[in-house]
Order: sequence, then C-alpha cells, then structure tokens
Amino acid sequence: MNQSSLPSPSTRGPADHDIRDQIVAAANEHFSQYGYGKTTVSDLAKAIGFSKAYIYKFFDSKQAIGEAICTRCLAEIVAAVEQAINEEGLSSTERFRRLVKTLVTTGVNLFFNDRKLYDIAAFSASEHWPSSRGYDARIKGFVLQVVREGRELGEFERKTPLDETVDAIHLALRPFVNPLLLQYSLDVIEEAPTLTANLILRSLMP
Amino acid sequence: MNQSSLPSPSTRGPADHDIRDQIVAAANEHFSQYGYGKTTVSDLAKAIGFSKAYIYKFFDSKQAIGEAICTRCLAEIVAAVEQAINEEGLSSTERFRRLVKTLVTTGVNLFFNDRKLYDIAAFSASEHWPSSRGYDARIKGFVLQVVREGRELGEFERKTPLDETVDAIHLALRPFVNPLLLQYSLDVIEEAPTLTANLILRSLMP
Repeated sequence: MNQSSLPSPSTRGPADHDIRDQIVAAANEHFSQYGYGKTTVSDLAKAIGFSKAYIYKFFDSKQAIGEAICTRCLAEIVAAVEQAINEEGLSSTERFRRLVKTLVTTGVNLFFNDRKLYDIAAFSASEHWPSSRGYDARIKGFVLQVVREGRELGEFERKTPLDETVDAIHLALRPFVNPLLLQYSLDVIEEAPTLTANLILRSLMP
Repeated sequence: MNQSSLPSPSTRGPADHDIRDQIVAAANEHFSQYGYGKTTVSDLAKAIGFSKAYIYKFFDSKQAIGEAICTRCLAEIVAAVEQAINEEGLSSTERFRRLVKTLVTTGVNLFFNDRKLYDIAAFSASEHWPSSRGYDARIKGFVLQVVREGRELGEFERKTPLDETVDAIHLALRPFVNPLLLQYSLDVIEEAPTLTANLILRSLMP
C-alpha cells in the first residue's frame, strides 16, 4: 500500500511504531464502541490501560489519534482504487469505471459497515483534517491520471482544458467521495454510481 | 406561479385560506426563531395566540404546518426556475444553464439566508415529506423538458435513452437540489454549478 503522498498524522515522541500502532488499534476499537466525539483522551487512556501522559508521548491530541485512524481508513480506499485502475491492458473508459466503482464499494464498506469509522471520517471531512484533504487530493490525482491517459490515447476529448475537466469530474464524484455527502447517497447507491460514470464518460467523448 | 403538481399539505377543517395562511405565516416566524424540531404545537399555539384546538381545525399535525411552510418555500424555487427556463428565444443549452443557476441561487437564498428554512427543508428531505418529493419531481420534470426539447432541436445527442439521461442529470444536480447535500456544497458554491453544468452539457453534445 503506497501511503507516501497521504500526509502523516501529527505525532511526536519515540518513533516506536509498535506502540503507536497499538494505541491506534485500541483507540479504533474504543471509538467504534463509544463514538469519537464524546470520548476524551482520559477516557481512552483508562480504557486501553495506558496513562494519559504515555499516550501524549505518541500523539499530541485526540485529533492526532483520530487522524491516524482516519488516515489508515482512507488509505485503504486509496490503495483499493489504485490497484483497481492500474491493472494492465484496460481501456481508459474501463479504468474510469473501476475508479468510480471501487471508490463507492470500498467507501460504503469502511464508513457504514462499521458506522463509527463514518463518524471519524465525517469529523475529518467537516473539519478539513489533513487526512481528508490528502484523501481528496489522491482521488483527484487518480481522476487526472485516467483522464490524461485517455486523452493521450485519443479515447477522450481534448478540447476542454484538462484542469476544468478534472475539477468537474472530481466535483461530480463528491457525493461518493465525501462521507458527509455519501451518507445521503446511500438510498441511490445501487444505480447512482453507474449512471454518474456513464454521464461523465459521455462528457469525455471525443 | 403554477403549483398544481406540488402536493398540497395535509389540511382539514374550514377552507378559510386567510386563517390558514395566518397560521402558516406565524408558524414560519416562530420556527425561524425557535427552530422547527424543538417546537410543539402547544408552544406554537401559545406563541401565536390561537388555541391548540383551533390550530388543529386547520392542520392535523405539526408536520402538516411544516409541510405548508416547506411547500411554499420549495414552490418559490420551482417558480423561479420555471420562469428562468421558459423565457422565449433561448437555446436549450442556455435553458439548461439557467435551470442550474436559478436552482442554486434561489435555494441558497431560501435555505441559508434564513437558516431555519434550511432546518425545515432538511427535515422534509430526510423524512421524504410529500413537499420534498414533489419538489424533486418538479426539478426532474424541468430537466426532462429541457433535454427533450434540446433533442428535438438537434442540439443534444439522442443515442442515450431519454430516461437514463434525465436520471443521470437529476442525480448530478442532487448536491444543489437536496438541502441536505447543499449544506456541504456551500464551500464550492461559487464554481461548482458552472463546472457541473458544463460537464453535463458536454455529455449532451450530439
């Protein structure tokens, strides 16, 4: 999984990845049960059996822990999309369809099969955390990659400025990318991604 | 203003429009100040100086009053869009641009310049009130009208089944039509409508 261009959560103290991971895993578990919004670092420390001071050696705030959870979760979507669109021998049209489909299925699974990940992702999106902005930038990067390749192959039109096309597609995908909008797209989630992908692909026709 | 295809709020009792309008206006005022969610019909009755029983002569529940307010508010958007797209001598492309622009500017003004109308509209949308479903259907009807006309004039492509095109456009406009999504579109409201309209218009090219 390539997370290199997702910003890392704000951390400090010993670079002991095992303990940091242990805290993130325990926090994830705890937030899943009690919610992210209502839990304080003291609650969390008590629940996972570390002192508050010890947790603060690794994370400088509750948000930093939330960020770490969110970064992991969003990186899973990014990795799934990356894998889906980079398979060899696909047309750009097919890559674009896979981008939309993978984005939606992975996002719905991660945010809504475990509702509390939705809570954290929603916090992240509504407060413009780096994890959320990084995620958004990665998705936009995938759109750019697929559109640019499709243009080079003569599969997509080239008259519209590339950045306008990419911005517009990125906006059209917002209801499936941004968890705050995705929550209200669940009742159209069966048909909406395909209809939207088809509309966008028609707009890309040379 | 043609409201004939918007469902009327559930009302009963004397068909005295003046008094009904008076209640709706007073309720609108009261909800604007105290919020829709938290106010009971008793609170409302006290505040506007009618007995609860008298209010129940005209409306069978608080929701029916909320519906009446919502129907009015959404009918304003419908009327504005209708007027904007039916001006004579416009191309279908121009009609479509006006549809999107009027929808967004009227919606943003009505829902967010008076935040409490947003509250009621959000209730209506999340609980699929008839006012909200009727509004959605009217907007879809406008999309159908413009697309069909554009096809007849040879301005838009005709290969895609008409209902698929209309469904997809209606979905693409959801972030500006549905107040629940619109609240999260406010930070992109300057550029998003034009970018989206342009993308949709490219998808309609013959």
